[in-house]
Amino acid sequence: MLQNIRIVLVNTSHPGNIGGAARAMKNMGISKLVLVDPVEFPSGKAVARASGATDVLDAAQVVATLEEALVGCNLVFGTSARERRIPWPLLDPRESASKGLEELQQGGEIALVFGREYAGLTNEELQRCQYHVHIPSDPEFGSLNLAAAVQVLTYEMRMAYLAAQGQPTKMNKLETTAMLNAQPVTADELERFYGHLESTLVQIGFLDPLKPRHLMSRLRRLYGRAGISKLEMNILRGILTETEKVARGEPHKRRDD
Amino acid sequence: MLQNIRIVLVNTSHPGNIGGAARAMKNMGISKLVLVDPVEFPSGKAVARASGATDVLDAAQVVATLEEALVGCNLVFGTSARERRIPWPLLDPRESASKGLEELQQGGEIALVFGREYAGLTNEELQRCQYHVHIPSDPEFGSLNLAAAVQVLTYEMRMAYLAAQGQPTKMNKLETTAMLNAQPVTADELERFYGHLESTLVQIGFLDPLKPRHLMSRLRRLYGRAGISKLEMNILRGILTETEKVARGEPHKRRDD
Repeated sequence: MLQNIRIVLVNTSHPGNIGGAARAMKNMGISKLVLVDPVEFPSGKAVARASGATDVLDAAQVVATLEEALVGCNLVFGTSARERRIPWPLLDPRESASKGLEELQQGGEIALVFGREYAGLTNEELQRCQYHVHIPSDPEFGSLNLAAAVQVLTYEMRMAYLAAQGQPTKMNKLETTAMLNAQPVTADELERFYGHLESTLVQIGFLDPLKPRHLMSRLRRLYGRAGISKLEMNILRGILTETEKVARGEPHKRRDD
Repeated sequence: MLQNIRIVLVNTSHPGNIGGAARAMKNMGISKLVLVDPVEFPSGKAVARASGATDVLDAAQVVATLEEALVGCNLVFGTSARERRIPWPLLDPRESASKGLEELQQGGEIALVFGREYAGLTNEELQRCQYHVHIPSDPEFGSLNLAAAVQVLTYEMRMAYLAAQGQPTKMNKLETTAMLNAQPVTADELERFYGHLESTLVQIGFLDPLKPRHLMSRLRRLYGRAGISKLEMNILRGILTETEKVARGEPHKRRDD
């Protein structure tokens, strides 16, 4: 589905930015790059900044006009850094990804269009776009680097795509969760731990059974919040057992003796 | 509120990336930059890529270790490109922004930590972070440019911040949380606790310094997850101090004797 997204860079001045955009795209699983009248391309500077995304640069299509770049596109988003005199449907990157994904899911092709480093897109170019997208930057310092803007919009597209696929947006989320909580302790195991903790604290003289104050309830809140696994519980119980031994004056023992 | 976010770049090789990161930060309204042992800084290449964000570079703090960079931080997010053997609470950038914002709303300070261009953060550095953040890039081409990664995470922070400005309904829940964790511990306090914990475990013979295995990292994960308050930290440190006394064979003492 991501192959139906094209990234269109209009009249880019610095070839390094083309390379940076190619890298950002490839990081997000997007490969179709269209360059409208680039100032310098191909370029060694683009290859250097692409940092391995040379396949994206090699396959880039170079055209003379925005009109050619958009042939076959069903939905076009134009990035806009400034307010325009002509009001236009304005989206933030997340909304644009959501709308773009709808189009992709219906089998359509979409374009994300990025303007010149200093001047952005002209009004005429912006009027070829159904939607304008604005990255909500600080108004006092609003203009992102071109490759950084490509990174943000393609990141949002990928987030929307992964969410729609039902895929985790983090690597091995399920595995991590599974391992972390693989065997969560049960309430009774937790109670036995608190009992063990309490008696150990009494043995080392930290807890006075006659003046317990709120000590145990504070410790219950802390450990209860952490969501302890069985493995972690074994470690904590092991620490308590060794502490009891030293409190009884038994010789210290290494785990592996 | 955004002024309580610090961006920490560890051992950056290319000064251009420091400049790109500064620009990305300033675009998102974030200004506090901390550089841990940068290879080349200050640098004209950084200024060139910063493209006007020279105030961020000028105010950047240069320190020798990650530990120094995190002094005073309540919540630390470390970016991670690869799988680790020991699973850790893993967030995507949006989730990290949501968690980070909660901490900021309680008056805390947070850090987003970014590793070396090629090698990322070491396991030891990652263990100083309560959460790991992974940008859901294409597994086949997963490594983003450093400044691009800074752009994505700071963009999500800004999106969360702007959304929160328009939603005052969350205040009651946050106030409750704020009261529970009235004074969250800072990263340096947490590190001192881990040091105390480790030496105590050695003293009672539970931890063999020659065969440490993953014990300390597992305990770091557990306590890091819990979000310990200053009050709770005092209790835990008190327990360790009493345990050390019994390990040394000193007479047990009640708290109120």
